[in-house]
Amino acid sequence: MERLLDLIDSPADLKKIAALDLPRVSAELRELIIDTVSEVGGHLASSLGAIELSVALHYVFTSPEDKIVWDVGHQAYAHKIITGRRSQFKTLRQAGGISGFPRPAESVHDAFGVGHSSTSISAALGMAAARDLDGKSNKVIAVIGDGSMTAGLAFEGLNQAGHIKKDIIVVLNDNEMSISKNVGALSSFLSRKITGRFATNLKKEVEAFIKNIPRIGDRLVGIAKKAEDSLITLFTPGMLFEGLGFHYIGPIDGHDMEALLATFHDVAELKGPVLVHVLTKKGKGYIPAENDPASFHGVGPFVKDTGRPSRKSKPSYTNVFSAALLEIAELDNRVVAITAAMPEGTGLSLFAERHPERFFDVGIAEQHALTFAAGLAKEGFVPVTAIYSTFLQRAYDEVFHDVCLQDLPVVIAMDRAGIVGQDGATHHGLFDISYLRHMPNMILSAPKDEEELRQLLYSSVNYNHPSAIRYPRGTCEGVDITAPLTMIPPGEAEVLKEGSDVVLIALGTMVRPAMEAAMKLEETGIKAGVINARFVKPLDEKRIVEAASGAAAIVTLEENALQGGFGSAVLELLEERGIRSPVKRIGVADVFIEHGGQAELRAQIGLDAAGIEATVRSFIKSMAPRKIAF
Amino acid sequence: MERLLDLIDSPADLKKIAALDLPRVSAELRELIIDTVSEVGGHLASSLGAIELSVALHYVFTSPEDKIVWDVGHQAYAHKIITGRRSQFKTLRQAGGISGFPRPAESVHDAFGVGHSSTSISAALGMAAARDLDGKSNKVIAVIGDGSMTAGLAFEGLNQAGHIKKDIIVVLNDNEMSISKNVGALSSFLSRKITGRFATNLKKEVEAFIKNIPRIGDRLVGIAKKAEDSLITLFTPGMLFEGLGFHYIGPIDGHDMEALLATFHDVAELKGPVLVHVLTKKGKGYIPAENDPASFHGVGPFVKDTGRPSRKSKPSYTNVFSAALLEIAELDNRVVAITAAMPEGTGLSLFAERHPERFFDVGIAEQHALTFAAGLAKEGFVPVTAIYSTFLQRAYDEVFHDVCLQDLPVVIAMDRAGIVGQDGATHHGLFDISYLRHMPNMILSAPKDEEELRQLLYSSVNYNHPSAIRYPRGTCEGVDITAPLTMIPPGEAEVLKEGSDVVLIALGTMVRPAMEAAMKLEETGIKAGVINARFVKPLDEKRIVEAASGAAAIVTLEENALQGGFGSAVLELLEERGIRSPVKRIGVADVFIEHGGQAELRAQIGLDAAGIEATVRSFIKSMAPRKIAF
Repeated sequence: MERLLDLIDSPADLKKIAALDLPRVSAELRELIIDTVSEVGGHLASSLGAIELSVALHYVFTSPEDKIVWDVGHQAYAHKIITGRRSQFKTLRQAGGISGFPRPAESVHDAFGVGHSSTSISAALGMAAARDLDGKSNKVIAVIGDGSMTAGLAFEGLNQAGHIKKDIIVVLNDNEMSISKNVGALSSFLSRKITGRFATNLKKEVEAFIKNIPRIGDRLVGIAKKAEDSLITLFTPGMLFEGLGFHYIGPIDGHDMEALLATFHDVAELKGPVLVHVLTKKGKGYIPAENDPASFHGVGPFVKDTGRPSRKSKPSYTNVFSAALLEIAELDNRVVAITAAMPEGTGLSLFAERHPERFFDVGIAEQHALTFAAGLAKEGFVPVTAIYSTFLQRAYDEVFHDVCLQDLPVVIAMDRAGIVGQDGATHHGLFDISYLRHMPNMILSAPKDEEELRQLLYSSVNYNHPSAIRYPRGTCEGVDITAPLTMIPPGEAEVLKEGSDVVLIALGTMVRPAMEAAMKLEETGIKAGVINARFVKPLDEKRIVEAASGAAAIVTLEENALQGGFGSAVLELLEERGIRSPVKRIGVADVFIEHGGQAELRAQIGLDAAGIEATVRSFIKSMAPRKIAF
Repeated sequence: MERLLDLIDSPADLKKIAALDLPRVSAELRELIIDTVSEVGGHLASSLGAIELSVALHYVFTSPEDKIVWDVGHQAYAHKIITGRRSQFKTLRQAGGISGFPRPAESVHDAFGVGHSSTSISAALGMAAARDLDGKSNKVIAVIGDGSMTAGLAFEGLNQAGHIKKDIIVVLNDNEMSISKNVGALSSFLSRKITGRFATNLKKEVEAFIKNIPRIGDRLVGIAKKAEDSLITLFTPGMLFEGLGFHYIGPIDGHDMEALLATFHDVAELKGPVLVHVLTKKGKGYIPAENDPASFHGVGPFVKDTGRPSRKSKPSYTNVFSAALLEIAELDNRVVAITAAMPEGTGLSLFAERHPERFFDVGIAEQHALTFAAGLAKEGFVPVTAIYSTFLQRAYDEVFHDVCLQDLPVVIAMDRAGIVGQDGATHHGLFDISYLRHMPNMILSAPKDEEELRQLLYSSVNYNHPSAIRYPRGTCEGVDITAPLTMIPPGEAEVLKEGSDVVLIALGTMVRPAMEAAMKLEETGIKAGVINARFVKPLDEKRIVEAASGAAAIVTLEENALQGGFGSAVLELLEERGIRSPVKRIGVADVFIEHGGQAELRAQIGLDAAGIEATVRSFIKSMAPRKIAF
C-alpha cells in the first residue's frame, strides 16, 4: 500500500487528505519517526506523543499564516515531516542536516526558534500583539508541555496573556512528564482527573436534588448552578487557568483524532486567551518508549525491535560525577543535591535513591534551583546543583544575586559544557566561562579528565565559596578514578610538559588535544609546553606568568566563546602584570555553532589536535618577523 | 512623652512592649522613617506600608531563630529599626552607612541578602529544607509583595513549596502595586475582594435555605457544605494558592495590629505551606505618598510638609531617552515599547500615554519581557525594551536564546548602567558589558552624552539586529539635543583628541572624565589622545588599532567590571591583530561595590577625572624602564 505521507509535502497537502484517513497518516508518521530515530538518534518519546496533535493542528489551522509556536521543540518531528521536510528527515540533527528543533531559518512553518523550555507563551503573545497592531486576523498557537509549564517564564507569559486578552491559543500538552516524571504542585493539580469525574457525579446529584424541591425560585436555581460550576472548576485543572483569565477547555484525549479536530475547530472560533488541555502519552505507539519515556526522551541509535542501544555506551562524565557525588556525600552530610527536572540527564538519580531526603528535584525551574540552593547554603548545607551549562543561563541573575553576592558555598556542576553535538546552537555550553567569570567570589574550574572531575568536585564542596565546575557531554578519558580524594587549592594549575618555544595553556577538554598537538610540534623541533589550567577563576597567576615569561609565546585553549572567555582572562592577567608576550587564543569564534557530531564540530572549528597544531604552527610562523622587530 | 521606640534595640525588647502599645510603636516608626527618608532619600512608600506587618511579625515570631525573609527588601526599614539599627538609621544608603536592603553581613536578623525581586519564597524554602535536615523547628517566613509575585521565580518557588509540603509561611503583602500600578492576570485575581464579600453573603443564603428544607440528609448537608466552601474559594484569591497546595488565610487588614497579631499567632501553629494574604496601603500614613505611591517608591530628599523634592531635579538620561523614543516612534510605527513594571523609572510613561496600543507593561517579568519582545520582532516590529542593567540580568538567557540566536531587532535600552549609587551592590549595573558582549549578533553601545543617546537609540532601532544601549542613572551633560537624527554605523568610534604618548579609549560615562584627565596630563607635557569608543561590540577595529600603533600606550576606560568588559574586548582585538602595545584597563575590580553617592563611589574606585589622571600617570611611569628593555 502506498504511503499517504508521500503525498504530503506541505500543510496544504495534508488538508487534501480525508479526515478519516488522518489516523493512518499518524501511524505512518509514527513509523517514520521510530525508524529514523532508531538509526540516527533524537528526541523520540516527546515527538511520538505529539503526532496526532501535530496532524490535527495543521489540519485545522493554516500555517504559516497561523503561527504554531512549539515549546522546546523536541516534540516537533511530525510537524517537520508534514511541513516539507520528509525527505530530509533522515539527516536529522546531523551536520548539514535539519535541526532537531524548530528553526525559522529552516522553514517558514517554524514560527519561532526554540530549544530551551517555556518560551512559547511569551513568544506567541508577542506575535499576537504584532498581529493586532498589523490589523491581521491569523491565529497564534503555543504548544507547551506540562513540564515546561512549571518554569517561571511560562507563568509570566500566562499572567500577561490572561491580562491583555489577546486572541491566543495555548495547547497544554500534558503527559505528566517533563523529561523525567514531573514534579511540583502544578503537576498534581493538572492530574486531578479522578476528582473531575467525582465532581461530575456530584453535579448530577445536585441537579436531581434541586429538581425534587417543590416551588424552587429562580434565585436558588441560580445559586445552585453557580455552586455546581464552581465545584466542577474547583476539582479540575481548569480552575487555575480560568483564574488567570483563560477560557479553559479539556482535558481531551490527545490521541483521539476526532476529538482533537472537533476541539480545534471550536477553539478557532473563540476570542481571547484559550487554554486547551490535551492529554497525551509520551512515547505513544512504541512500547519500549511508553514503558520508559525518560530513557527515550533523548536517545542515540537503538535496535527497533528491542529498544536497546545499538552501541554499548561507555562511561560518561555524567556517570563519574554521579558516583563521585555519592562518594563525597557519604563523607559529608552537609552535601545535598538539586536538579531542575533532570535527575537522569545529570546523573543525580543514584543520589536520589540513596539519599532521598537530601535530594531535591525542583522541576524545570533553574532560577528557583539556584535561589533554593542559596537558602540551603545560607543555613550551612553545601548544595550541589547539577545543571547543563546551557540551562544555567536561565539562572544567571540568581547565581549573581543570591549565590555570589552572599558568597555562599553553592556548587554548580555544569554538565554539557562546550560543544554538545546534535542538539545544536540552542544547547551548546559555549558561554558559561564568559557569563560566570566576572562574578566576584566565584571559583570556576574545568577538569582535564574524569579523575580530576572527582577531585574538583570534592574540592569545590570544601571551598566554602560559590563554585562551578564545567565538564563535557560524552565519554570520559578512561583514566583510573580510585585515588584518595584530596583538596586542589583554588587556582592551582598543573604543568604537564615544559617547553620554551611556546606554552599551550589548556582548559578542560582542551588539555588532551593540546598534549597531542604539543607532541606533534616537538616532532618538527618546536619545543611546546603544556599547562593544564584547571581553573578559569582564580587563575594560576604564578604559573601563567612564568610560562609567559619563560617561553617565546603562549597559546590559550578553551571550548568556550573567545569573547570574555578563558583566554581573555589570561590576556587580562598579562595586562595587569605588564607582560606583553605574544599570545594566541584558541576557542570558539563569535558565531553560533550549528548541530552535528561532537568530534566533527570540534574538528570543524579547529578544536581537535590537528586544528590546534595547525593554528599554533601558523601563529609561530606569523611571529617570526615581529621577533626581529623587537 | 518619651518614645517607646527608644526602648527597642532588638526584637526581644519589642516583645516587652504591651500589645496594646504596638500601634504607638508603629506610629513612632512611621515618623522616624518619614523624617529620615525626607532628609536622605530612600524607599519610602513600601516601607510605610509594611510597618504594622513588620512589628507584628517580630512580636509573634522570634528572630533570628525564626527566619524572616523580605522580598526585594525595600519595605524593611521598620524591620531594620526594630532589629538594633535605630541609631544608624540616619546613615541609610550612604557610603559606610546601613544598606537600604537587608544584608546578612549587617545583622543576624537579615536572614537573606536581597535587592532584586521575587527571591524570597525560593530562599525561604531552602532554609526550611535546611531546618528539617537539621532537625530544628524554627519558622521560616517569606514576606512578598503582590508585584513580586508576578515574576516567574516566585511562581517556581510556590510550585515547589506546594509540592514538598515543608512548613513555610508566605506573607503576601498586597498593596496592588509593584513599583507602579500592578498589572497582569494575577493582579486582577488578587483584587477579588468585593466578590469575596458577595460569596460570604451567598453562603449565608445557602445556609438559611438548607435549614428550611425538612428531613435533609447528612449527605446533602455535606454536598451543600462543599459547594459553599468551593464558592468562597472560587471567588477569592485563595483559589489559586489552595490549588497550588497552600493553606490560604485572608485577606486581612495589614494595618490592623490586632488582626495581624491574632492571625500570626494562629498561623504559627499550622503545619505545611501557609499563605497569609495581607492588604496594605503603599505610603500608609503619609498623605503625599498615599496619593502618589509610584513617585514615593524611591525618592530623593523631600520637604516633609509638602512632599516636594528638596532639590530641583535636572534632566536625566531617562528623560532624554523618554523624549527621544517618542520622537523616533513618531517617525517609525514599527517601534513599540516594553517595560517590566517600571513605566516611570524607565521613562516610558510618556510613551504609554501617547501610544497606549504600542506600549506593553508586562509586570515584574524581565524574562517574559524579552521573549515577548522577540515575538513582536519576529513579526516585523522593533520593540524597545527599557530595563535597568541590573534587572536585565534576569533575562540573560532570553536575550541569548530568543533574541540573539534568531538575530531579531530587539532594542534593549539599559538604564542605570554603571554605578547607581545608594541602592548598592544588588543594583549597580556593572556587569552588562561582560554578560552581553559574548552573544553573537549583538550590537552593544554606550553614549558619551544625552545627544549621543538620542542618535544611538535612533540608530539601534534601524540596525535590524539585536542591540543594547547602556546609559547611566542620573543627570545628563547638558548638551544640545536638537540635531537631526542620523545613523551611526555600528562600531564607529569618534576621535576626540589626538595624542602620541597615550590614547585613552573611553566608553560612555568615562568619556568626559577621560577628556578632563587628558587635559591635565597635557599640562605636564604628556600628549594624551582621547577616543570615544561608543561601541563595545562591534569595536571600531580600525581606530583602536591605529591608536595602539600610533601612540606609545593605550588606556581603556569603562564603568563596568574589568573581567570580560570593554577593556578586555580591546585586549582581544589587539591579540587577534598581533599588536602588543602597552595597555592599561581602567574599570571596576573584581569585588562587589557597596552603596553610597554615585560621585563618591566613582571617586573611591578611581573612575573620576582625578583617579584616571593618577592611574594613567603611574602607568606611564611604570612603562618607562620596560621601554628601554625593548
